[in-house]
Amino acid sequence: MRVLGVDPGLTRCGIGIVDSVAGRRARLVGVGVARSATDDSVDMRLLRISEQLDEWFDRYLPDVVAIERVFAQNNVSTVMGTAQVAGLAMVAAAKRSVPVAMHTPSEVKAAVTGNGNAEKMQVQKMVANILSLEEIPKPADAADALALAICHLWRPSGILDKAERFEMTPAQRQWAAAEQAARRARGVR
Amino acid sequence: MRVLGVDPGLTRCGIGIVDSVAGRRARLVGVGVARSATDDSVDMRLLRISEQLDEWFDRYLPDVVAIERVFAQNNVSTVMGTAQVAGLAMVAAAKRSVPVAMHTPSEVKAAVTGNGNAEKMQVQKMVANILSLEEIPKPADAADALALAICHLWRPSGILDKAERFEMTPAQRQWAAAEQAARRARGVR
Repeated sequence: MRVLGVDPGLTRCGIGIVDSVAGRRARLVGVGVARSATDDSVDMRLLRISEQLDEWFDRYLPDVVAIERVFAQNNVSTVMGTAQVAGLAMVAAAKRSVPVAMHTPSEVKAAVTGNGNAEKMQVQKMVANILSLEEIPKPADAADALALAICHLWRPSGILDKAERFEMTPAQRQWAAAEQAARRARGVR
Repeated sequence: MRVLGVDPGLTRCGIGIVDSVAGRRARLVGVGVARSATDDSVDMRLLRISEQLDEWFDRYLPDVVAIERVFAQNNVSTVMGTAQVAGLAMVAAAKRSVPVAMHTPSEVKAAVTGNGNAEKMQVQKMVANILSLEEIPKPADAADALALAICHLWRPSGILDKAERFEMTPAQRQWAAAEQAARRARGVR
């Protein structure tokens, strides 16, 4: 199975492709980032990222796409762009009839290191180890995309199905409650 | 000038097209909604909305696209889908070299009714009045998209340019501060 991992981002969108290999290993097929210029307008930036995603999809023909699940409580100044790039990756997959899976950062950490709270560097070292690479792939977004793809190879859950309706995880529900409390404190409905 | 307004949404994405007319009026050119089935997977839903947006763009050939500015503090259970649909509308415009403008709900209310805090129904009545319609366009998302388009006709600001980098409005900054406080209270970084 070939998995294309996407770590969504507007400035750098990490992309990593791995193939499954017998035993608890995986083979690196491709890795890189789709970029857009920070001084360009948002609409053009999204278009550029979308075009690059199309090129990666057409070049590597993945069997499944694994995308980091973005939460609304993340950094508000970047979450919109991140969510939008995740959406573009989903559309790139859907128009090729490639199934999409979403994995949370802690699922990825747990799959790759055995610890859902692992440090970023530990995850990246394990990615290099699993893929038999001498160095950690750079930039970090590229390594994170490989971690996502490896996570999906070993935990092939999270495929979006007809039941998936942006339902909230327990952590999201907890956040939503805190957010509502903060909103009430400000007198906003 | 022909403006295509988009009120982004995953279940119903309002679309309204108006032409400028001499005097403080506007002409209705087209109105409707792009829809996706709530029991379908998110990736397929985004693809369906994207395909419908493409059809509206190609049919009506707008000079500019006006999209409602989505804020991260909106309903967390729907904000991701809304942001993603707004992103798809931006890409649909960018690939046709159509400029994109973003307007906040209060800008739209102020432009259409003279009051940035107007009730939804008042905005919709004014839309019908301005466009010389006997009835308020249904559903509400379609009327909201027309209000966005009218807003842009009369306040042709908000065009995304190279300076636009998801900068936060004063209200967003205020929200971000409240959000950070709530996060600290929960011990989340």
